[in-house]
Amino acid sequence: MASPAYIDIVKRKQAEQQSRIPQEWRLKSLPDDSVTDVRHIPRESGILSAREVEITETFDAVELADRIRRRIYSCHEVTLAFCKRAAIAQQLLNCLTEIFFDKALERAKQLDKHLEEHGLPLGPFHGVPISLKDNFNYPGYDSSSGVVALCFRPAKEKSSIVTVLEDAGAVFYCKTNIPQTMMSLDSVNLIWGRALNPLNRKLTAGGSSGGEGALIGIRGSLIGIGSDVGGSIRVPAMCNGLYGVKPSAHRYVSQVGSEFIIPGSFGVGLSFSTGPIATSLRSCELLLKVVSDGKLWESEPHVLFSPWRTLEFKPRPMKFLVLMTDLVTTPLPPVQRVLKETTAQLQSRGHKVVVLDDPPKFVKQLHGLSNKLMSIEGGTWASDLVDKTGEPKVPWVAPRLKRRDPATLKQLFELNSKNEELITQSLKLWKSSDGQGFDAIICPVAPHPTPQPDAWNGAGYTSMFNMLDWPSGAIPARNVTREDLEATLGAETGTSWDKINRTKLWEKREDYLGSPLSLQIVGKKFQEEELLHAMHVVDEVVSGTRGAAVRDHKL
Amino acid sequence: MASPAYIDIVKRKQAEQQSRIPQEWRLKSLPDDSVTDVRHIPRESGILSAREVEITETFDAVELADRIRRRIYSCHEVTLAFCKRAAIAQQLLNCLTEIFFDKALERAKQLDKHLEEHGLPLGPFHGVPISLKDNFNYPGYDSSSGVVALCFRPAKEKSSIVTVLEDAGAVFYCKTNIPQTMMSLDSVNLIWGRALNPLNRKLTAGGSSGGEGALIGIRGSLIGIGSDVGGSIRVPAMCNGLYGVKPSAHRYVSQVGSEFIIPGSFGVGLSFSTGPIATSLRSCELLLKVVSDGKLWESEPHVLFSPWRTLEFKPRPMKFLVLMTDLVTTPLPPVQRVLKETTAQLQSRGHKVVVLDDPPKFVKQLHGLSNKLMSIEGGTWASDLVDKTGEPKVPWVAPRLKRRDPATLKQLFELNSKNEELITQSLKLWKSSDGQGFDAIICPVAPHPTPQPDAWNGAGYTSMFNMLDWPSGAIPARNVTREDLEATLGAETGTSWDKINRTKLWEKREDYLGSPLSLQIVGKKFQEEELLHAMHVVDEVVSGTRGAAVRDHKL
Repeated sequence: MASPAYIDIVKRKQAEQQSRIPQEWRLKSLPDDSVTDVRHIPRESGILSAREVEITETFDAVELADRIRRRIYSCHEVTLAFCKRAAIAQQLLNCLTEIFFDKALERAKQLDKHLEEHGLPLGPFHGVPISLKDNFNYPGYDSSSGVVALCFRPAKEKSSIVTVLEDAGAVFYCKTNIPQTMMSLDSVNLIWGRALNPLNRKLTAGGSSGGEGALIGIRGSLIGIGSDVGGSIRVPAMCNGLYGVKPSAHRYVSQVGSEFIIPGSFGVGLSFSTGPIATSLRSCELLLKVVSDGKLWESEPHVLFSPWRTLEFKPRPMKFLVLMTDLVTTPLPPVQRVLKETTAQLQSRGHKVVVLDDPPKFVKQLHGLSNKLMSIEGGTWASDLVDKTGEPKVPWVAPRLKRRDPATLKQLFELNSKNEELITQSLKLWKSSDGQGFDAIICPVAPHPTPQPDAWNGAGYTSMFNMLDWPSGAIPARNVTREDLEATLGAETGTSWDKINRTKLWEKREDYLGSPLSLQIVGKKFQEEELLHAMHVVDEVVSGTRGAAVRDHKL
Repeated sequence: MASPAYIDIVKRKQAEQQSRIPQEWRLKSLPDDSVTDVRHIPRESGILSAREVEITETFDAVELADRIRRRIYSCHEVTLAFCKRAAIAQQLLNCLTEIFFDKALERAKQLDKHLEEHGLPLGPFHGVPISLKDNFNYPGYDSSSGVVALCFRPAKEKSSIVTVLEDAGAVFYCKTNIPQTMMSLDSVNLIWGRALNPLNRKLTAGGSSGGEGALIGIRGSLIGIGSDVGGSIRVPAMCNGLYGVKPSAHRYVSQVGSEFIIPGSFGVGLSFSTGPIATSLRSCELLLKVVSDGKLWESEPHVLFSPWRTLEFKPRPMKFLVLMTDLVTTPLPPVQRVLKETTAQLQSRGHKVVVLDDPPKFVKQLHGLSNKLMSIEGGTWASDLVDKTGEPKVPWVAPRLKRRDPATLKQLFELNSKNEELITQSLKLWKSSDGQGFDAIICPVAPHPTPQPDAWNGAGYTSMFNMLDWPSGAIPARNVTREDLEATLGAETGTSWDKINRTKLWEKREDYLGSPLSLQIVGKKFQEEELLHAMHVVDEVVSGTRGAAVRDHKL
């Protein structure tokens, strides 16, 4: 009996990938499964020179760019260092999809030449390697999005965000792993296997930008491009102890991408945003500014005119609203504790914090409605693509991807109407009783720490801000401690999500020890500038205490 | 046999309206049909004092506001003057729906008191009467939108634009006539009859904001609020020789309005904008600025954060693109001639003008796609409402409002995808060959002058900018001359629209003589500030020549 079509395609695809990793960058041996934290391996592999270790481990993207501008490092040696490290990362973590190290090194040479000839960089990212989630197009390479049927269909055009960042000097060198169907919060598919978490390979790397999270987590990249329709930037940022920002959809969207995205679906149901994951917050901010400065609204149909506003933020007591629960799933003790600690820390620095232990009832509806809006199409497009080659569905997808009737226009209007009502109600959250209004909302990224693969329990805490289209980002706060794991569970909400959280997710808590806990910071729509400022304020406050706990997670 | 339900409702509604016009404001006799231009009648009616004639005929809204602030006129006397004039307008033109003169006069008194006590106005529109298209909500009054079934269902909440403008000092005093179903470019319905054009009662007042156009055309108002989903602000602005601006939908939309609007439909298909019609361009600009300053994004689900940008425009040669045809309907000679004259005038002032006689082929698709996007719902909602009381459809609506299957989600995606493609192509129009880029596009409002009632021939020239969501406005250029009517027809396009244009619309051209010809000026999405500047530049240029021709149309 002949093998199903997909097997041959996968074999060819994997062989192609393998052939793009030079022999001399291959690890002599792979660590066995008992080695859960693999972040030391690149450094010790013998593949990177001491200088390459320094380049990849010492700076964030902003500082690296500065050193390139000052000619401390050449673009070529920087790119070579990150190509090597990404190659090692791939061997340890399955975090890459398409590899184009050769093209990147060629471009890096040209960038060095440019700097030599003109004395000036192309732009703020001159010579900085940037990794790219698989669903964005890079010409000549697939955007298979974890679907076998989309293999060997190389993109013809660049995603517009690629153009903008290349114009600013960036070097693209690889694309990163995502889940089959893109709709899960893990990153596993038949073509590339599962992206693993470099901090603890027993835990998920997150998804859908999980390959980005894993690659940046091991510093095979300092900054990458993700997309987020329900948490896909913020979740892997949390899992891998990184910073990630999901901006407002109509301000940051890159339209030309994978065929997996249904043409004409943007703006109907939930809309995806394009944003950064990085080792530092200021790198995320620089990327958002550079993309704004690229004026994508002059060519992209869905990007709205919104020049980056360079605002002067004078130090002042800020006002935060802390959302302790979404009323669907009570956060597990480690998550609750970090929110309370952050509250205390902010207050001790003179900031005002209102803690919402018992939010208005409508909040409970946000999770359910965002799920409905995310699935209005009924799964036909994805099912057709998956079924095309007979590839089996991965375990997480199998029970969830069923063909259902798409929403009728009437049902779409009803969902939109409910959405309008919930947005209207949610906007009132910003008004504080003293009339000053809140600067930002702080809440969990998830109701649990980073769990084992395929165990993520609901995207409500992140997807609600896709539904509201409020920009939001993840900040690492500190790591899970023994004390966190011994604390008492909070109140039951009675939902099935909550039951799973307090049983399955809590029973396996031993693995969470030492994994990063993050905060989600939420801003107002189209006010990324103010959100970033609030994130900086919180980041600075939590960095005081996270030092000891997180240090071993920061390279 | 009992009369159908709608007849009784209409009778009661008309009696209610009648009762709201004080006896002493009733005209002793109505002019017969041979009096086509009725703008002199309020002045000569004996109902307005000389001072009230001065108040209503001498200024635009901006200057009137200034005189109120300087206490030259009290808010009360201004409101009284406009109530009287609106009452007369109603008797001549059927331009009003809901009347609340008593409430307005009461509010005007309070505003006078405020000014006396505080010495400062509430805001830029302190004491200025603003008229309101029927589909916006004013509490205690219907928003029947020309549909009998929506009579005697008074609104509970204010449309948000009403709140913002009242906060800025505006006085609302009446609502204005619209077409049955709101989707036509005339303004006629069973409840209120047909709004007539004060400049020439043989011609249409336009629609769907036709009551606004008629009322402002006779100076029963200096500025009013309209809505535009396919031309409904720009068309009546043209018909009545006024200025009108349709802003970007997601920047200017007032959500709480008539039940005629399908809940949850905003953003699906074509989206409506809320904008001004006024006797001067600067009044339109002030209104848009005031609405932006009202920060509706803090409470409205669909309004995007977009503070008004106060830009300094230094005099410089600007660059315009003149779109001579949409390739569907060749403009009739008067329209072509005014575009050519404007081109010459702009050039003579040193501006650069590129005339696009033969635009790229995709332009031809804009009209058809915008029609499809406008009718995706299939007419069920409107049909249900119209059928509810058994009211007959008006002649224009009867053949067009049929129940059809609504678009499926798949069809919606296909239309959206086509829309994305056309937006992407259209964005390229902005790039000029010298790389400077165009400041604005100039094109017709319609391929014909203001026609007889129910003869408007396609909304393509306006609806394409709803589909693209580019802000655009109408400016009166000059009036139709005898020479215009003797010129030769342009090239045939072969479409049915074009055939109608060169036969029916051209055969009846004698009536057009002396009616206003307008220009449509188009800007970039979310760049209303730059659009207004371009409109001012064009307005100043055409005002030089329109003087003599238009003078008799300007009170």
